[in-house]
Amino acid sequence: MKVVVIGAVAAGPKVASRIMRLRPDAQVTVLERNEHISFAGCGLPYYVSGAVKEQKDLMSTPAGVKRDPTFFEKVKNVRVLTRTEAVHVDRQTKRVRVRNLQTGAESDLEYDYLVFATGASPIRPPLPGLDLANVFTLHSIPDADAVRQRVDSGMVHHAVVIGGGLIGVETAESLRERGCHVTLVEMMDQILWPLDWEMAKLVEQHMAANGVDVLTSTKVLAFHGAQGAVTRVETTSGDIPADLVVLGVGVKPNVELAVNAGLELGRTGAIRVDSHLRTSDPAIYALGDCAETVHLVTGEPCYAPLGSTANKQGRVAANNICGIEDVFPGVLGSTVCRVFQFTVARTGLTEKAARAAGYEVISVLVPGPDKPHYMPGANPIILKLVVDVKTRRLIGAQGVGMGEADKRIDAAAVAITAGMTVDQVAKLDLCYAPPFSPAMDNLITAADVARNKLDGRVPFVSPMEVHAKLQKGEDIVLLDVRSPAEYETVRLPNSTLIPLGALRGRVNELPRDKEIIAFCAVSLRGYEAALILKAAGLERVRVLDGGVAAWPYEKVMGKK
Amino acid sequence: MKVVVIGAVAAGPKVASRIMRLRPDAQVTVLERNEHISFAGCGLPYYVSGAVKEQKDLMSTPAGVKRDPTFFEKVKNVRVLTRTEAVHVDRQTKRVRVRNLQTGAESDLEYDYLVFATGASPIRPPLPGLDLANVFTLHSIPDADAVRQRVDSGMVHHAVVIGGGLIGVETAESLRERGCHVTLVEMMDQILWPLDWEMAKLVEQHMAANGVDVLTSTKVLAFHGAQGAVTRVETTSGDIPADLVVLGVGVKPNVELAVNAGLELGRTGAIRVDSHLRTSDPAIYALGDCAETVHLVTGEPCYAPLGSTANKQGRVAANNICGIEDVFPGVLGSTVCRVFQFTVARTGLTEKAARAAGYEVISVLVPGPDKPHYMPGANPIILKLVVDVKTRRLIGAQGVGMGEADKRIDAAAVAITAGMTVDQVAKLDLCYAPPFSPAMDNLITAADVARNKLDGRVPFVSPMEVHAKLQKGEDIVLLDVRSPAEYETVRLPNSTLIPLGALRGRVNELPRDKEIIAFCAVSLRGYEAALILKAAGLERVRVLDGGVAAWPYEKVMGKK
Repeated sequence: MKVVVIGAVAAGPKVASRIMRLRPDAQVTVLERNEHISFAGCGLPYYVSGAVKEQKDLMSTPAGVKRDPTFFEKVKNVRVLTRTEAVHVDRQTKRVRVRNLQTGAESDLEYDYLVFATGASPIRPPLPGLDLANVFTLHSIPDADAVRQRVDSGMVHHAVVIGGGLIGVETAESLRERGCHVTLVEMMDQILWPLDWEMAKLVEQHMAANGVDVLTSTKVLAFHGAQGAVTRVETTSGDIPADLVVLGVGVKPNVELAVNAGLELGRTGAIRVDSHLRTSDPAIYALGDCAETVHLVTGEPCYAPLGSTANKQGRVAANNICGIEDVFPGVLGSTVCRVFQFTVARTGLTEKAARAAGYEVISVLVPGPDKPHYMPGANPIILKLVVDVKTRRLIGAQGVGMGEADKRIDAAAVAITAGMTVDQVAKLDLCYAPPFSPAMDNLITAADVARNKLDGRVPFVSPMEVHAKLQKGEDIVLLDVRSPAEYETVRLPNSTLIPLGALRGRVNELPRDKEIIAFCAVSLRGYEAALILKAAGLERVRVLDGGVAAWPYEKVMGKK
Repeated sequence: MKVVVIGAVAAGPKVASRIMRLRPDAQVTVLERNEHISFAGCGLPYYVSGAVKEQKDLMSTPAGVKRDPTFFEKVKNVRVLTRTEAVHVDRQTKRVRVRNLQTGAESDLEYDYLVFATGASPIRPPLPGLDLANVFTLHSIPDADAVRQRVDSGMVHHAVVIGGGLIGVETAESLRERGCHVTLVEMMDQILWPLDWEMAKLVEQHMAANGVDVLTSTKVLAFHGAQGAVTRVETTSGDIPADLVVLGVGVKPNVELAVNAGLELGRTGAIRVDSHLRTSDPAIYALGDCAETVHLVTGEPCYAPLGSTANKQGRVAANNICGIEDVFPGVLGSTVCRVFQFTVARTGLTEKAARAAGYEVISVLVPGPDKPHYMPGANPIILKLVVDVKTRRLIGAQGVGMGEADKRIDAAAVAITAGMTVDQVAKLDLCYAPPFSPAMDNLITAADVARNKLDGRVPFVSPMEVHAKLQKGEDIVLLDVRSPAEYETVRLPNSTLIPLGALRGRVNELPRDKEIIAFCAVSLRGYEAALILKAAGLERVRVLDGGVAAWPYEKVMGKK
């Protein structure tokens, strides 16, 4: 059995290695047009920051052996041809024309199965000045080397990162950690589109607190330079000095060869595959960043390029090629990143995406410490859950904060995959001990809050709605039921303080003709307060989702 | 509606508070025979160690308000009577006779619903010398005070902890951190019975490396003292000096009152309840450490007292009492503890328990770094999965090591609850970024190893079987395929080194008439090696489960 694999970064080596494990008699050839193979692309920002010391670390096995063609030959019995490009596929005769990029020589390779693992390329927006020196993308080892060398030169005082997606945010942090003054420019009204707006704002605030200038709703108009090198980025929010620019505006799947071979693309523009990862030609598979996949919640095609998906798909494709039926069911768009001390994680649908897809949803914002508050090392996280009202199923989860949000989002990802309702999530037997979680884990508490909301126990109101009311000058009472000490540290503008313990005795101080928005640090006491007011006959009482902790707008500090 | 709740530690306050939130018109009285209420029992070892500085931290809300009767009165509108014991239940007239333990006065409380949240008591084994001074349990605030005061006195050079369960292990660590010489005595042949033997041995090795003397298969015979205080523990492994003894041999449910009231107990000896947490009397509920629950994998009754379960059950019981139907489906026995730098977590059935319950299972031991090896802060964890052969379902998972095992076990707990097969677990879209996990998360890799094993791709062998062969003097080849540098650091006794990269060329050095056990650090290269040997025609080749990392016996260090 002859197999040709095009691409040797993540999916390609995986599929090749697995085939050889299953069919030691197979002949597998992997083609790679670049020099570097089997490298950890997701590690590039950490190489720039210096957290990953050496380039070779990104290309080695855990035992320290470099994953080069010799390694694949000796250990895996896989032939890897670097600096070799597949230039044409003849599906009739099952041949791939390959070109040696060093010599220019061309030859043909026969295949029984062909695998597209051609990856993706960073988008380079057509802007004036794009070709100035020191304007980089961060997608390959040479990219990372170039950025790191530029920073190492000591000449980068001002760095500008274009695009507030995962790569952009990670790169902004890396450059900040290297001592640069960093501006992050994002066209949309929030960074990190995989999050809902109010969650992204919390990350923006954290980035700003760590010295990154975040400019949202800002378009880049042009790059300007001197002596051929960039010095300034012109944007709709003004000019930004720049000794270095990193473009992180997304990637597009590498599909030219597939298109030329007559393979079908999906509606996302990536190569269309079935659940076996077969393209429209049953002898040709596609996987990783060049292929489309399916969203597990919506069942719709989606494009979600990620190293973890590529690796899992490698095994599925190899199994099918070797006659062992296997399926790749799809993804939830689970992602996580570190942003300074914050963990930012999400899975499933955002509220925005869910509504756009036609779901009737409720959402909850639930802050809390990730361990019992009395334990040293307890850190806050804010969870947002998105729940389908009709089925009560959890369909999305986001987590942000200093605490271990990733753990909760991973558990949520499994629950969403299983189609669990929030009622089921609330009963999960998650591991509990004080060094690891509160007795009621954050995910379970959030699920219970969602159940309260679904059951209409008490009406909640989002920070966005409250903010809009305030902007419109509506006369509402922002009732803060925390302690005076908490109130003096940080509070919402124009809020009224009545500590929860005193509330039953002071209900009469509150006007009966105005809407009351009750809250506390996390809105647990706010919820208790609303129930007390409701029992006292006040009708127009709502609870602020997420309390002070999740308030995405300006707060007031210090004594009143 | 009148509700009487007996017990005010974890489940009791929860059920009372939730009832008042749902039914502000209810009258809820909580009885507690001790002084302290609503305290974090699981935090006691951390109070002993000093990680939790003050006693009040264990009894406060996150906002720092003490959860005393005044707090419950003012905030929750719940009446809590401390130092008050329920001495008799008359189910006919629906009355509870209560005794004020300070005055001795008795009175009757009427109820529409009665809730048993009577908790559990530490087992005090009937041993000579049990009543000597400085022999403690660690179950209450006064217990913790007594232990901490004894340690604070500076008189404790030798501390002996009896029982290697969760409390015992956590207490041993706490005392070691306070500078005591600590001996942990366990009757069974392993500590931490919620783990399989080979996983527990890894924890024992780690405790020993941190200065705790662990004595397994050791029975305590008596405590001996001088001037009424303990000085020595007599065991089947000899005498141990002791200035302090902590008993951690388990707890038993407090069921006397329930038995006297004629309520049915389950076969575990705890109060029998249905999925609504109702006892055999529909007006009486039981929950928390005094009640039996159901194991979600076996469907059998089980007793698994834990604060997280108590809290979740509190909400379920309150919902049902208030007419909102809710069920508590059961538990997986999920537990986690910190043992020095190790995280030790588990969920579902151990291999031993699964076999005892009649399942035909396979298990895998899969070590690996919890983040990509090139990231600073990557730490090893060893996962063990237990899989039902008939259904391919994951039914148990254990994780041990310096890395974040708890995250993987939580994800596994959700997968087990959902009845997922390892084939489904292997496709989970868990969050990936280098600061958080490898591209193939440890749980996914472990699921893939389990799939290989289920499909018979290559035969595996457990460390216990290999060790037994060696003990019997069987002539087998222990083939280590790591690098010479790794081999010189630590290796298995009498192993042969042929690095994986050289193996294809050196197959002829291996005898064809002996069994070959291939392995590496984690048995990934060991697996590759076995495939190479199999392809080369060697028949009797197996892979050592878990490699050097999971070898639970003695290892050899240094140059050969």
